Amino acid sequence: MEFIKNIREKTPLIHFITNYVTVNDVANAALAIGASPIMTDEVNDAPDMQNICNALVINPGTLNENTVKAMIESGKRANKLGHVVVLDPCGAGATPYRNKVIAELMANVKFDCIKGNISEIKALANVSQSTKGVDADVSDNVTRENMFDVFKMAKELSQKTGAIIAITGPIDVIASDKAAYITDNGCKEMRAITGTGCMTAGVIAASLVANPSDKLKACVAGVIAVGISGERALSYAKGTGSLHIGLIDELSNLDDIKLEVGAKIERFDI
Amino acid sequence: MEFIKNIREKTPLIHFITNYVTVNDVANAALAIGASPIMTDEVNDAPDMQNICNALVINPGTLNENTVKAMIESGKRANKLGHVVVLDPCGAGATPYRNKVIAELMANVKFDCIKGNISEIKALANVSQSTKGVDADVSDNVTRENMFDVFKMAKELSQKTGAIIAITGPIDVIASDKAAYITDNGCKEMRAITGTGCMTAGVIAASLVANPSDKLKACVAGVIAVGISGERALSYAKGTGSLHIGLIDELSNLDDIKLEVGAKIERFDI
Amino acid sequence: MEFIKNIREKTPLIHFITNYVTVNDVANAALAIGASPIMTDEVNDAPDMQNICNALVINPGTLNENTVKAMIESGKRANKLGHVVVLDPCGAGATPYRNKVIAELMANVKFDCIKGNISEIKALANVSQSTKGVDADVSDNVTRENMFDVFKMAKELSQKTGAIIAITGPIDVIASDKAAYITDNGCKEMRAITGTGCMTAGVIAASLVANPSDKLKACVAGVIAVGISGERALSYAKGTGSLHIGLIDELSNLDDIKLEVGAKIERFDI
Repeated sequence: MEFIKNIREKTPLIHFITNYVTVNDVANAALAIGASPIMTDEVNDAPDMQNICNALVINPGTLNENTVKAMIESGKRANKLGHVVVLDPCGAGATPYRNKVIAELMANVKFDCIKGNISEIKALANVSQSTKGVDADVSDNVTRENMFDVFKMAKELSQKTGAIIAITGPIDVIASDKAAYITDNGCKEMRAITGTGCMTAGVIAASLVANPSDKLKACVAGVIAVGISGERALSYAKGTGSLHIGLIDELSNLDDIKLEVGAKIERFDI
Repeated sequence: MEFIKNIREKTPLIHFITNYVTVNDVANAALAIGASPIMTDEVNDAPDMQNICNALVINPGTLNENTVKAMIESGKRANKLGHVVVLDPCGAGATPYRNKVIAELMANVKFDCIKGNISEIKALANVSQSTKGVDADVSDNVTRENMFDVFKMAKELSQKTGAIIAITGPIDVIASDKAAYITDNGCKEMRAITGTGCMTAGVIAASLVANPSDKLKACVAGVIAVGISGERALSYAKGTGSLHIGLIDELSNLDDIKLEVGAKIERFDI
Repeated sequence: MEFIKNIREKTPLIHFITNYVTVNDVANAALAIGASPIMTDEVNDAPDMQNICNALVINPGTLNENTVKAMIESGKRANKLGHVVVLDPCGAGATPYRNKVIAELMANVKFDCIKGNISEIKALANVSQSTKGVDADVSDNVTRENMFDVFKMAKELSQKTGAIIAITGPIDVIASDKAAYITDNGCKEMRAITGTGCMTAGVIAASLVANPSDKLKACVAGVIAVGISGERALSYAKGTGSLHIGLIDELSNLDDIKLEVGAKIERFDI
């Protein structure tokens, strides 16, 4: 497959409504992988921006009442136009307001991919079902021991939402309603940089626009693109500052050969 | 001329109402060139901030209804105080709301310089005249073939607004109502970093404050300061992350000798 | 003492309501020193976030009417929960609105530490007393000549507020109502990077959470942690861009031995 080549050739224009903490990295990561980012979160402006874009990424990390309106209206517009829509439910489960907003987003917008860490995805699975909570057996770390429980949760959430579910962590799980991939790419040092998850959501969106024929694999490519770039940068980083910069350097130099050689993935039918 | 020395000696205090995507780079670029940045976009606060500043830069990239009020009121205050005011019409032409806001800004604030890419400047030229659109012959890339058409558009916009018009791209055009410069500085790799345009607006503002005797040349110096710094950084950058950091390094080390030696500019009477 | 080790072991969860200019650096600096940052400034969300956090840092640099509400309500909640609260009165004294907001914050929230430059602390001392202004003898630069005047101002502000007062500049002063430290760590080149002060506030908060037995020393450790990291980075930085990245690298590699060896501090009873 030519996941990265396709992104660089199609240069997807991606509209982000994202947090102001990592937005610069998100924009630079999108550019580095070959996409073109545009940011606006004013409800009078954002939905119309979808008219010239290929995708929308919603990350309510630093949400407020005004930007939430822009998220919902832009999401509806993106759905109407058939655009790729990715949700990064940043901080899901942390506060009642945040859960209410995420429930509203889920009720109003159809997502192609939902990407979060295990806590966020669990919170979101709870939010999206009224009858019972998520299986308590799903702990807060994905391991090779509990991964089948995680696959089950991801499969159910995928069935309910129609989205690919990407759960990032020491081991990443990317699942549809039929199959799941686990990946071992990335390194623990990346957790000491803010924004690697937010960047991943953008790279997934770019990959989905450019590789529409297999959405699950496109999401896997997006996740490991960031992980492999982080691993490569770690080999020469002197600390978290230079790891951060090296990650962007490596994303900008990434190609499909590096992706294929670096990929540590395993597939499961679920 | 001593464009950079003058900035470093006068340390202009520049108030930015700018997008939250590239604001950190804008602040660091302003510091690197010898200016002092201050950011505030609350209408109860921002106009008063002009009282202690030398300049205002308005960039509506991530505008919202509240910050637009701050842009207009701060712009009026800056005009009243005779301060340098620069407009970076980020995203002009992309949505109706954005065009409305830019028309409001143009109607209420007088700018010393308007800096954008060719699409933004064309959108703005259209917004600012009610009778007919901009000459369709002006394509979306400035080349040595079509540059006289671009000069004509810039000259008309300069006559109408009183501003220097700076059009950035593979070839940059900086024009008043009487003369135009083209510059070949910068490199295509800079397009893969977000914020080089936003930083340029700030460096132009610093240059205008410190070099008031020839506004056109001050704007040219601001544009090529960023371009030359990017070229120098490219010689050792390993990707877009280190190009980004190298650009700030080079701006912080820039002096008038490097500016003069590196300048690739040509002047035309128009 | 094991200031840094304690931070890395306790990984304090710090809620920041801070400006959008330097927020990414603040988050990465907090991670680099071993803390975990979370940002939210919506009044419906932010106070509840305190329920899962250990500390709150308030920096009204890019305040607006909505975020000011979140600052006050989150501050009250943090006080109620006995959490560490740090104020970075960014831009105090610059505008009437900013002074009004800071007076409101002081009236409603009790702070463990107030950290600012000398102008900000003077403005804040003025705001917090209605009868007379701060001693005009306290100039805008702390020197070895005027430092006893600065100690007196800091002591009075500490008595009135109950907070440790940290005044950053060429010489830093960190004072309680009984003792003051001066530190010579840091370097003048750090003033050409935006956000070193904002990062310091976060590192102080982390240090206070992890080292509660001696608040004054915990604040000193926070201030010099950033200063020493900057000095170390300066030895190989090529300009302000790489100094910025090196500072984060050094923070991520800092330990108590480097802190002790690098510390340039002197203690005074006041």
